[in-house]
Amino acid sequence: THALAPPSPPSWLDDVAWDERGLAPAIAQEAGSKDVLMVAWMNREALLQTWARGQAVYWSRSRQRLWHKGEESGHVQTVQDIRLDCDRDVILLTVRQEGQPSGPGVACHTGRHSCFFRQLDGDGWATVEPVLVDPERVYK
Amino acid sequence: THALAPPSPPSWLDDVAWDERGLAPAIAQEAGSKDVLMVAWMNREALLQTWARGQAVYWSRSRQRLWHKGEESGHVQTVQDIRLDCDRDVILLTVRQEGQPSGPGVACHTGRHSCFFRQLDGDGWATVEPVLVDPERVYK
Repeated sequence: THALAPPSPPSWLDDVAWDERGLAPAIAQEAGSKDVLMVAWMNREALLQTWARGQAVYWSRSRQRLWHKGEESGHVQTVQDIRLDCDRDVILLTVRQEGQPSGPGVACHTGRHSCFFRQLDGDGWATVEPVLVDPERVYK
Repeated sequence: THALAPPSPPSWLDDVAWDERGLAPAIAQEAGSKDVLMVAWMNREALLQTWARGQAVYWSRSRQRLWHKGEESGHVQTVQDIRLDCDRDVILLTVRQEGQPSGPGVACHTGRHSCFFRQLDGDGWATVEPVLVDPERVYK
């Protein structure tokens, strides 16, 4: 006799062209505003959990572990749509950025709405988005 | 006597956290629609040329050369805004996708509006965007 096999991971995970580290960049785009909030990385398990939970789970390269964004701070991202590009090596999430009872959601660990708050002008990168909340409250 | 030094590259190129290959991912987001069109790669020279020309210039990893997108096909991207994220390792362009006299611009080499035309449903990645032009006309 043999034990029941565990459920096998869905085959669509194999359709992603994971890089040599087993990772792919994932863009989080806000539903409604369509603002690009951030880019992080996913591995197979992160994408599987993102799909299963309906909340963004990334792979933290610095901490080398899964990162369920906002799990402690409440700044989670509810996932509405998951897309893959033509080369199958970039993931695009449509998310609702939770955690702020009113006003724009805060995706960036600096307390800003979006991580893309530096704009190139003739002289350099100018910071063009305000800090909305104390970074201590979102850096989780 | 000594020759005049060539103009030095702008110092803001050094503010980007280029990876070990000297590259950073660059997202092209369409002005107006705010659709995410594609993700490609840039090195220092690609970003400098993008800024200087006002049109997107990427680094082709497969061809190992600069890639002025649409140079031959006319599907160039006019750049309106260049941003850098909090970790300084991802670039976000706001672009006007040129090349189609009417209807949505075509950014993808498959002849589609966006490269993110595969959507995850319960069973796998479904193609959810139509081919708008013959791919032979845009694969340049």
